[in-house]
Amino acid sequence: MNVEQAVAEAAAKYSNWGRWGEDDVLGTVNFIDAAKRRTAAALVRRGETFSLSQRFDADGPQKGWRRRTNPVHTMLDTGLDAVHGDQGFPHGIGGADDVIAMPLQCSTQWDGLGHIFDHGRAWNGRPADKVVTSEGDQVTGIEHLAAPVAGRGVLLDVGRVIGDGELPDGFAITEEHLTATAEAHGVTVGRGDLLCVRTGRLTRARREGWGDYAGGPAPGLSFWTAGWLHRTEIAAIATDTWGFEVRPNEFEDAFQPLHQVVIPHLGLLIGEMWDLDALAADCAADGVYEFLLIAAPLPVTGAVGSPVNPLAIK
Amino acid sequence: MNVEQAVAEAAAKYSNWGRWGEDDVLGTVNFIDAAKRRTAAALVRRGETFSLSQRFDADGPQKGWRRRTNPVHTMLDTGLDAVHGDQGFPHGIGGADDVIAMPLQCSTQWDGLGHIFDHGRAWNGRPADKVVTSEGDQVTGIEHLAAPVAGRGVLLDVGRVIGDGELPDGFAITEEHLTATAEAHGVTVGRGDLLCVRTGRLTRARREGWGDYAGGPAPGLSFWTAGWLHRTEIAAIATDTWGFEVRPNEFEDAFQPLHQVVIPHLGLLIGEMWDLDALAADCAADGVYEFLLIAAPLPVTGAVGSPVNPLAIK
Amino acid sequence: MNVEQAVAEAAAKYSNWGRWGEDDVLGTVNFIDAAKRRTAAALVRRGETFSLSQRFDADGPQKGWRRRTNPVHTMLDTGLDAVHGDQGFPHGIGGADDVIAMPLQCSTQWDGLGHIFDHGRAWNGRPADKVVTSEGDQVTGIEHLAAPVAGRGVLLDVGRVIGDGELPDGFAITEEHLTATAEAHGVTVGRGDLLCVRTGRLTRARREGWGDYAGGPAPGLSFWTAGWLHRTEIAAIATDTWGFEVRPNEFEDAFQPLHQVVIPHLGLLIGEMWDLDALAADCAADGVYEFLLIAAPLPVTGAVGSPVNPLAIK
Amino acid sequence: MNVEQAVAEAAAKYSNWGRWGEDDVLGTVNFIDAAKRRTAAALVRRGETFSLSQRFDADGPQKGWRRRTNPVHTMLDTGLDAVHGDQGFPHGIGGADDVIAMPLQCSTQWDGLGHIFDHGRAWNGRPADKVVTSEGDQVTGIEHLAAPVAGRGVLLDVGRVIGDGELPDGFAITEEHLTATAEAHGVTVGRGDLLCVRTGRLTRARREGWGDYAGGPAPGLSFWTAGWLHRTEIAAIATDTWGFEVRPNEFEDAFQPLHQVVIPHLGLLIGEMWDLDALAADCAADGVYEFLLIAAPLPVTGAVGSPVNPLAIK
Repeated sequence: MNVEQAVAEAAAKYSNWGRWGEDDVLGTVNFIDAAKRRTAAALVRRGETFSLSQRFDADGPQKGWRRRTNPVHTMLDTGLDAVHGDQGFPHGIGGADDVIAMPLQCSTQWDGLGHIFDHGRAWNGRPADKVVTSEGDQVTGIEHLAAPVAGRGVLLDVGRVIGDGELPDGFAITEEHLTATAEAHGVTVGRGDLLCVRTGRLTRARREGWGDYAGGPAPGLSFWTAGWLHRTEIAAIATDTWGFEVRPNEFEDAFQPLHQVVIPHLGLLIGEMWDLDALAADCAADGVYEFLLIAAPLPVTGAVGSPVNPLAIK
Repeated sequence: MNVEQAVAEAAAKYSNWGRWGEDDVLGTVNFIDAAKRRTAAALVRRGETFSLSQRFDADGPQKGWRRRTNPVHTMLDTGLDAVHGDQGFPHGIGGADDVIAMPLQCSTQWDGLGHIFDHGRAWNGRPADKVVTSEGDQVTGIEHLAAPVAGRGVLLDVGRVIGDGELPDGFAITEEHLTATAEAHGVTVGRGDLLCVRTGRLTRARREGWGDYAGGPAPGLSFWTAGWLHRTEIAAIATDTWGFEVRPNEFEDAFQPLHQVVIPHLGLLIGEMWDLDALAADCAADGVYEFLLIAAPLPVTGAVGSPVNPLAIK
Repeated sequence: MNVEQAVAEAAAKYSNWGRWGEDDVLGTVNFIDAAKRRTAAALVRRGETFSLSQRFDADGPQKGWRRRTNPVHTMLDTGLDAVHGDQGFPHGIGGADDVIAMPLQCSTQWDGLGHIFDHGRAWNGRPADKVVTSEGDQVTGIEHLAAPVAGRGVLLDVGRVIGDGELPDGFAITEEHLTATAEAHGVTVGRGDLLCVRTGRLTRARREGWGDYAGGPAPGLSFWTAGWLHRTEIAAIATDTWGFEVRPNEFEDAFQPLHQVVIPHLGLLIGEMWDLDALAADCAADGVYEFLLIAAPLPVTGAVGSPVNPLAIK
Repeated sequence: MNVEQAVAEAAAKYSNWGRWGEDDVLGTVNFIDAAKRRTAAALVRRGETFSLSQRFDADGPQKGWRRRTNPVHTMLDTGLDAVHGDQGFPHGIGGADDVIAMPLQCSTQWDGLGHIFDHGRAWNGRPADKVVTSEGDQVTGIEHLAAPVAGRGVLLDVGRVIGDGELPDGFAITEEHLTATAEAHGVTVGRGDLLCVRTGRLTRARREGWGDYAGGPAPGLSFWTAGWLHRTEIAAIATDTWGFEVRPNEFEDAFQPLHQVVIPHLGLLIGEMWDLDALAADCAADGVYEFLLIAAPLPVTGAVGSPVNPLAIK
């Protein structure tokens, strides 16, 4: 089967269009409900927090692909100005202030529902050109996800269970790998979960340098997990890689076909470039792979993605 | 007493310098411990979430004071390009992508510990010019707060209890107002709490337009609450105003003297421009003014502030 | 006649489509040739230079209309860091460096040929959606004007000749005003000229504050000068106002109809927000209203406008 | 002699401090006077223009050294929006608009006088920390050079005369090379000239890719040309390399020692990353190596550098 056919077939089989009404702007985040959040909060047993965010700075992995650069953080005022300059403030008060310029998907992020289209169709079947214009996403902007993204987090450390801590580039994580990992962890994955899949790719980047972390070869979800991603009714999935799905992709001349299915057709929330290492080490230590996970995006009006600092609480 | 004396006296009386060791980079966030987070998680009874963030867009309140502008969000790729242009992607996949340029304190935010100095001294007594240079905050950058800022949130709706929903500009919220509000709510404020104080200023801005919301007159904490802020051992305080403390300030020719005491001397985490309205309405309805609050800043390396989407879960 | 009819009629009568071939990317700049530049160079009699640029900084007139802000200039390194910080450079060398974020049309500027469209048509009749995508102007990007924009400059100080130094807002400059001013100056306007029209609007803004300089009422060219602009075969026209044409526009519910004719149909290069005051004072003093004018835009690839520092040499 | 001594000696011997008064903000640009500009204008014989600017876009050579990135140019409105979206404009007018974020020295540029310091001293002996703060260069900001930078340009194509079109990396151009090249060209270099030195480094980058063009090894001026640069009383010098002087520098553990002498002590205007190839080809063809050169920087208030599109007219 070629990639065109594979995408078309998966899109038809796993579509959630209309599932939450014509006006839906949340996609699979609809699977999280209050009851699930209560259960998730009850998972907090120790009170430990884990930030799942990489840092935002000029030393990130971006190399300029499609103008995706690393963040540029600059100061408007500094302690040097406060002490040696003349800030013009009274009674000895001094201040520092700063600005940032960055692609919204330069580091740890959520892909918004307006990020990927299939043959001109956005989430819920809307025409992409009516949804995302130069003024941003007029319909499914990331601001709609400001409140709901908190619930039960589950870590599947596929890198540790299937690999020897780290999966090699090009390794396609299948449904079987996911199931086997869940079983090894003694955890189940289900409706409304915020699923974190660790491949170990970031661990390697940390050790060996970024290299082609942004856009290059990487382990990741197989295209053929689309059915599982649909069937499990998870609310979101996040990985420690640049692009969530395996790269090179599993078809000739293909580019991110799983994105093409799961964002516009499932309405699935995808997280990328998450740092799962500290959390994974803790889970390996205490054998507990579920936790409360809060990952509220920054509500940039009309954004098709958002930087995020996801917080796991065990 | 003039402002110089008042600041000096408060600084001397309420200093936390050295309290958590010479190398401390967390300030009052140290008051949050695992036990407090367990208690906080147990406050989740309904599973409802409330985003306490204003939106980040060009329609914000900033007017350019000290180069603080509103966010500029622009698209790198759009649905229009996907449908009518030539993105150069294969098999019908299309994409949208975006960038942002913004001051880190343009909208809902945390002030980092490197944001304010007193006579050239930063938090814990460090020389401000050794802490914050043009490369950013080398010591207390906001990235150090990536993990811990989650705990028990308490809302004091002073606007509703003391005012008639909204406090007027220039209204100085005193210890007595805070205590009376807590009593009216049937809630206590204590060690490690993340305190949210609603004045109603944002409610008014929403109704009447921004006007001078950014930097102009506003209700806010009285300078004389410094002792209470110290004594209660709260981890953080956030308001729905631009500048947390009352404006005009309570002294002649003064500029944010309470900042000058609580950031460098107490090491207090301050949140500004939070949107507390929906949460306050809910608290008024169910009479419950405590909740789990997660407000992890974006870990911009060396930043002296951070945009944040705080999430309250009741 | 309503604005739709007026635009359509002018577009039909004054079209330059095809005049310089199907592939043309220069428009009326084609009117400048080497001979004209030789003549222009010969106008340099004293060797005095006049910068016709406003400054680029946060104190500019922009108020955020369609995300047009003032420039934000921030430092990456400063003299404070060199002296009191640790830049890490050897043998006592220190440095300062800086960045800017700005709309390309925030201050003194050229409008590129891809800046304005008429009913979906760009310069030379091209479909606007094939010319300017999210990747910029793929055909007539401002970089094509990097070399040729140098020639004979002529100042028509309409503010001084027709007004009393300054024209009032809403004053429509007609062909008669232009002709009378040229006559008063003893200068002719013709093929390949870079025409500068001073209204005095900037002079007033300087005295009274920006107010609505950006986008508000202003004197400017009458819609009915389209024929004159076409017939004179000037290469470019620049004014000291935000929008070149008179505002409010001369039709009900209209927005910049003269732009709609002269950019896509004439291919005319338009300069806005130029500072003509010092030059005008000098011309009034010596009675010479022609000069060598060099106004090479910054070759930002694919840009639809460019900041520029035009230099007049007399 | 070590680099510290070499710099100190050269600084002492070639200092221009005080030469143009205590308040000077122009440095060697003072050497250009009206008479020289008249002579320069008389060099325009054919009326041909040559843009000496590289393009400003994401495909530039910057790799993030000290946060120097390539420009990020994004669209606010496009032809796609005009045709298929809804811009909300009346009577069929449509528009495109854009923004840029860039270091001021990311591409073809002038170094401002506040760009480099020697042991904490800026141009004319001023303390660097009083000159350049977080608010920019308070004294010698590039805006002071808005008007005067126009005069006689001279090209020394050292790459062609001494090399075989291109000099190798690490090649130190000496006074002898400069003199020999001038002689070969039949041109003299003197007071007030704007000197362009072509090494061929950009030609190579164009052929082979950027590689380490930004900051890596390159041919360039020898440290020992400081005396010649002083004695000739040129107003400015520009090269087709990233850093003007030879790299690696001619001393152990050194960084740009010639900058350290010529900017703060001579007050010399330095241009970098100029594109001299088309001009050089023309000069080789017609044997004329002098021309009118206009290179007015963008007057960004307080900037320590500026993008520029230098225009040579022959």
